[in-house]
Amino acid sequence: MKTEKISELTINRLSIYLRCLNELAGAGEATVSSRSLAERFNLNSAQIRKDLAYFGEFGIRGVGYYVEDLRQQLMRILGLLTTHRVAIIGAGNLGLALANYPGFSEKSFRIVAIFDVDPAKVGMKLRDGLTISRTDGLRETIERESVEIVILTVPAEVAEAVFNEVTGAGVRTVLNFAPVHLPPRPGVKVKTVDLSISLESLSHFLANPAGEPSGW
Amino acid sequence: MKTEKISELTINRLSIYLRCLNELAGAGEATVSSRSLAERFNLNSAQIRKDLAYFGEFGIRGVGYYVEDLRQQLMRILGLLTTHRVAIIGAGNLGLALANYPGFSEKSFRIVAIFDVDPAKVGMKLRDGLTISRTDGLRETIERESVEIVILTVPAEVAEAVFNEVTGAGVRTVLNFAPVHLPPRPGVKVKTVDLSISLESLSHFLANPAGEPSGW
Repeated sequence: MKTEKISELTINRLSIYLRCLNELAGAGEATVSSRSLAERFNLNSAQIRKDLAYFGEFGIRGVGYYVEDLRQQLMRILGLLTTHRVAIIGAGNLGLALANYPGFSEKSFRIVAIFDVDPAKVGMKLRDGLTISRTDGLRETIERESVEIVILTVPAEVAEAVFNEVTGAGVRTVLNFAPVHLPPRPGVKVKTVDLSISLESLSHFLANPAGEPSGW
Repeated sequence: MKTEKISELTINRLSIYLRCLNELAGAGEATVSSRSLAERFNLNSAQIRKDLAYFGEFGIRGVGYYVEDLRQQLMRILGLLTTHRVAIIGAGNLGLALANYPGFSEKSFRIVAIFDVDPAKVGMKLRDGLTISRTDGLRETIERESVEIVILTVPAEVAEAVFNEVTGAGVRTVLNFAPVHLPPRPGVKVKTVDLSISLESLSHFLANPAGEPSGW
């Protein structure tokens, strides 16, 4: 494995490759070349080879990749061979939508707790074993439930305070939907999701319909 | 401008550069070099130069980029100099969260309609001028409101039927949150958002804390 720093964009592309491989595996295909992977899913074959080369030698000359083997390797690299315990903070519309998002549980993420400050929401059962908890028991619940990942769906003005509380409780990975920049903290990885970025690639298309960007 | 196909990832990076420039403009900075832009926001300076070169010559030797000028150019390329009229189909938790997402209106997107099949929801006022509409008037409302972009937050099993209806009504850009692959349609751009991709870069970090991926 190369020691140079691997970019977030490389990691995001591995997630995309994994989805393509899942589709190929579902269709019963055993092997695929980087060229045919690129053609079928509108990706770049040189980029695929370069991204995978960061992590080892996966291709076999004259064969390409073994689909199931590469899937397992990507799942290992992406940390998806174990299930991660996730807590959502903020049971507004977005928090509730994420609590019910079917894609998470299929992909090694298990929502084990959801919190809100609103007393009217606390105690509401969302589904088997998932009930909205009071935020004043946040730290205790995070420790008891061995939460590894926190999803922040709180209003912007309280995001930093909640972030400080959860990282203080030992959480090292935070997915932030609040439209604020959270301060860097050693050993903590924050990913801020900006839903308007997806809309901007559509407005680019509206402004430049001839130059339709490809793929993902 | 080069004629080669510009990738979706390039367009997404332009959105990120625009956010960085907005921050610099807010801080009153007049110029920035690709190197200092990269250093301050944890980006790659060669990539910045390459991405921008697709669209023209924006840098000035010895100066770098004029922040306000480059902002305007990126907004033009991303089609953000005009406001786009957006409809949301599906007023579940995710649809309602997006209808109230503050980031959209700041960024040239105006939600002009939201639809649901549930009679109990139809007629609910969300805010000034935005009321949940019946899906059986979909086509008519899309035409009357000159909707350009549709956000699909419907269950997976009805997504394709709704997609056919909105593209039949002339909509050419669709942001799809349903976990399904929508069929290609000439002249129509679909972007499917998979919220679990963001979680996977966090689980990668948990599995490889030493090789923390950088930046965005």
